Amino acid sequence: MARLSTILRLKRLNSLLGIYKRSPSCLQSIQTNYREYHHDHDRARENWWEISKNQRFLLLTAGAIGGTILTLSNDFGNASVEAAEKYDPDIEKHHKTVRTDLPTYRMEDVAAHNNEKTGIWVTYGIGVYDITEFVPKHPGSDKVMLGAGSAIDPFWHVFQQHNTPEVLTLLETFRIGNLNPEDQVSTRDMGDPWSGEPRRHPILKPAAQKPFNAEPPPSILIDSFITPNEFFYVRNHLPVPEIDEKTYELEIEIEGVKKVTKMTLKDLKKLPKHSVTAVVMCGGNRRSDMDNVKKVKGLYWGPSAVGNAVWTGVKLCDVLAKMGVKSDEEKHVHFEGLDTDPTSTYYAASIPLAKAMDPRGDVLLAYEMNGQPLSRDHGFPVRAIVPGTVGARNVKWLGKILISDKESDSHWQQKDYKGFSPSTDWDTVDFSKSPAIQHMPVTSAICYPSPGDKVKVEDGFITVKGYAWSGGGCRIVRVDLTCDGGETWHVAELEQEDLAKAPPGRAWSWTLWSAKIPVPKKAREVEIWSKAVDSNYNVQPESFKNTWNLRGVLSNAYSRVKVKLAK
Amino acid sequence: MARLSTILRLKRLNSLLGIYKRSPSCLQSIQTNYREYHHDHDRARENWWEISKNQRFLLLTAGAIGGTILTLSNDFGNASVEAAEKYDPDIEKHHKTVRTDLPTYRMEDVAAHNNEKTGIWVTYGIGVYDITEFVPKHPGSDKVMLGAGSAIDPFWHVFQQHNTPEVLTLLETFRIGNLNPEDQVSTRDMGDPWSGEPRRHPILKPAAQKPFNAEPPPSILIDSFITPNEFFYVRNHLPVPEIDEKTYELEIEIEGVKKVTKMTLKDLKKLPKHSVTAVVMCGGNRRSDMDNVKKVKGLYWGPSAVGNAVWTGVKLCDVLAKMGVKSDEEKHVHFEGLDTDPTSTYYAASIPLAKAMDPRGDVLLAYEMNGQPLSRDHGFPVRAIVPGTVGARNVKWLGKILISDKESDSHWQQKDYKGFSPSTDWDTVDFSKSPAIQHMPVTSAICYPSPGDKVKVEDGFITVKGYAWSGGGCRIVRVDLTCDGGETWHVAELEQEDLAKAPPGRAWSWTLWSAKIPVPKKAREVEIWSKAVDSNYNVQPESFKNTWNLRGVLSNAYSRVKVKLAK
Repeated sequence: MARLSTILRLKRLNSLLGIYKRSPSCLQSIQTNYREYHHDHDRARENWWEISKNQRFLLLTAGAIGGTILTLSNDFGNASVEAAEKYDPDIEKHHKTVRTDLPTYRMEDVAAHNNEKTGIWVTYGIGVYDITEFVPKHPGSDKVMLGAGSAIDPFWHVFQQHNTPEVLTLLETFRIGNLNPEDQVSTRDMGDPWSGEPRRHPILKPAAQKPFNAEPPPSILIDSFITPNEFFYVRNHLPVPEIDEKTYELEIEIEGVKKVTKMTLKDLKKLPKHSVTAVVMCGGNRRSDMDNVKKVKGLYWGPSAVGNAVWTGVKLCDVLAKMGVKSDEEKHVHFEGLDTDPTSTYYAASIPLAKAMDPRGDVLLAYEMNGQPLSRDHGFPVRAIVPGTVGARNVKWLGKILISDKESDSHWQQKDYKGFSPSTDWDTVDFSKSPAIQHMPVTSAICYPSPGDKVKVEDGFITVKGYAWSGGGCRIVRVDLTCDGGETWHVAELEQEDLAKAPPGRAWSWTLWSAKIPVPKKAREVEIWSKAVDSNYNVQPESFKNTWNLRGVLSNAYSRVKVKLAK
Repeated sequence: MARLSTILRLKRLNSLLGIYKRSPSCLQSIQTNYREYHHDHDRARENWWEISKNQRFLLLTAGAIGGTILTLSNDFGNASVEAAEKYDPDIEKHHKTVRTDLPTYRMEDVAAHNNEKTGIWVTYGIGVYDITEFVPKHPGSDKVMLGAGSAIDPFWHVFQQHNTPEVLTLLETFRIGNLNPEDQVSTRDMGDPWSGEPRRHPILKPAAQKPFNAEPPPSILIDSFITPNEFFYVRNHLPVPEIDEKTYELEIEIEGVKKVTKMTLKDLKKLPKHSVTAVVMCGGNRRSDMDNVKKVKGLYWGPSAVGNAVWTGVKLCDVLAKMGVKSDEEKHVHFEGLDTDPTSTYYAASIPLAKAMDPRGDVLLAYEMNGQPLSRDHGFPVRAIVPGTVGARNVKWLGKILISDKESDSHWQQKDYKGFSPSTDWDTVDFSKSPAIQHMPVTSAICYPSPGDKVKVEDGFITVKGYAWSGGGCRIVRVDLTCDGGETWHVAELEQEDLAKAPPGRAWSWTLWSAKIPVPKKAREVEIWSKAVDSNYNVQPESFKNTWNLRGVLSNAYSRVKVKLAK
């Protein structure tokens, strides 16, 4: 294919974007394209061809209107779109290159632009950027404000999901000047926050490397009712902290009470030991299924951002009761991790105090996973286990517990992990309008066969396997399978804990299921659907179209896998 | 239309059915037709034309194979199919007519056939019937066995849903003989169990008269957050018992403990008084929506078999704690009503003891509804209120409470109010495989406008109103509306109790909602859909096709209302 890339130069493109900045609607379109295709992980790079096609479309449209514009922008370098498709680290050079068409600023000028009224400026490398318009559209608009009026380099050193051609190119569209060389910030001498990451089992397929986010292959996930530690998905929001168990202390504070309790790991281990078998599932599990219907923003998780383990530790209600805490339905328990961002802000989340104080809620301060001390990736030395509740509240590397009148005001409680209507987009979203996800809805996933597999038909039947789970302690009561678009449904065999071990409202483990389902005689290909029903008789929604949300969380529509049939 | 009815006589039809009995597959088809079209209420009569068409189809098929069959059956009466379409009470005459082609039996012969091994015979009027094959297909197979080897007349005197042409004609297909006149049973002298029924507000639209089952018009339902007592739907399973509050006693028994506690209404009123605002919803609410997609068995409820009231009484956990009962997750609380069937079997149901003992479960022994003593239709003098749980467990006219190791073995707990896969039919259903419904799934209904209404469009918008609710104490967090098949969704305004009054897990009240939604400019007709999302982020399923179940319970798919637009 004779690609346009041979004549279109990337830096010319950037220059054009600079020019288009004066045309807000055009810029808006470009930004929208970027936004839609931006994912905070490696996969975004694969979308580069898509993105550049869009850009090119815009360029060509613009070109047709006024071809002269092209002649204005001939003084830029040689990096081709072709190269960018394969990710060109040179793209970062924009932020190392003086733009002679723009003025030079001092850091104090930048610092004076740190709020909505003044406009919001930031620096990256030697570039000065006015991101005022972009801030409300940033997936974490509160997070981006931490860098307002200053250098964002240290943030991006930690949040490496920004280091993609899309983001860097998008940033350049906001360029308004050059930073005086005397004020330039370097990250060269900063300690690498990622240097202390633990080693991971190669079976974990990363959705992102920094922070590390990875899941095992679905077919391996369902091989055992208890997920082996090494195969358990990892969802980190920040670098893994290095914690010495000898000096480790867990702070427990009650708002309004001066004395803060501190407990060492030894102190915790002196309390009655409890084990709970429970699923931890990422709020974005199965996001890729939703993303395939319409783009969302978030890590491209398959169906394996979930695992079922035996967690051992102390009951949080025992610890709190000992401190004299009484259940109060208007209060909350905050969990703060020891993992931090560049401003030393901890990862944090909260749950209702009533859940923590309910002995049947089974909330643990866990120090063991499947009989082993927690690994570093899973929260060593102590993490919260909140059965039935989205992974994001099962805070790892627990540094502090706070009993408060209010929910955690962390980014992850307030500006993330919430659901919205399918018609809510980044321009209209108001995160204050939706509750933070706590209990997760009913879901299931077909883990065997995999999409595109050639499946053996035996006596007219194929074998299908997967898992099902529902939050809030709801038991799975049925999993239905169809391979004829719902004309006939087949009930799967379930493997699950019995009622004595998981009484009503305390079914924290998952259900593994398998079914032999008949396939039409002459079919060469079928699409298998699974849907689970829980003990509240809630059922998975049919389609992602009608449950789509901009963050791609709660992705629990029917699991659908298309396979070929081998006779 | 020149109807076949002018040449086909009903009794001839019956005779043919008798002959067809020797052809099991043909009989099976006829029975299936009957079963599919049988509803235990008046509406079934409207289906008569459909049924007779099916029968005629069978007859004509049979006729084509062997026309001589017709000549064998010329000695029967004159009631025409035409008349039967409009419900002919004469149809009962079969059961008053001696069949000279069949032998005569004594009641002792019948009594000797009272189990699977001997075959199951019953009598009705002067007919003797072998219903062995039918028993497993009866919607309440355990109930029908109560009449095995005896007269079913007294049962049908109470369960009047049997007195339809379909059921009576079906019964006649099982005729094997005539009952000796000396043994004939009459119900003429039985006290009429319906003579003591209370008067009802005429706004309640009956789905059945005996037992009384009725709902208010949807548009009135949403006029007030608290449903007025007179407008509250009534779902009775048996005649309303007449209870004297002066002599009323509630028995409370703990299995294995000899002493039975008895409490008068006065005793109950001495205990701390609690009020809970809670929905009671029938398990069959919105069944008509499911039935419209594919026939189900059950009362034809619209969306108003639900109400929201302030219930006042004592907390069951207070009563039980006083008796020394401790929470035990493997135990159950049985509620037995004082309403009885002809064998003096009480209406009964059970809930997990853990729900009853949880102070946050808010289970009440209620004696007031919206500040008034309970009315007779709503359980005077005392009923169970089990917030978040299907109506069937909110037992009225409470006579006895039993703490037991097992669930209630009542028909209504074991053989009814359970969900199944869409492909489970009356031939394959195994009621022991599904759990009794307790918590109800998330639902919503459009109550205004009504289907077919001509709706005023104002500035391009129409107003839509309804309710939403979810069981298990889950709050409604969002209701989405669309009138373009899900292309765009509009978020409704919610009227609900605030979090302080209904903390997490205790949102027992419903949510009323309203929305102004834009309609396409040139549209003359739109179909509005509503879907609710609860605090576990469970969402209503899209279609009844994929959630259909043979009893038509849990009918919680999207509410869809088609209306005309007036400009």
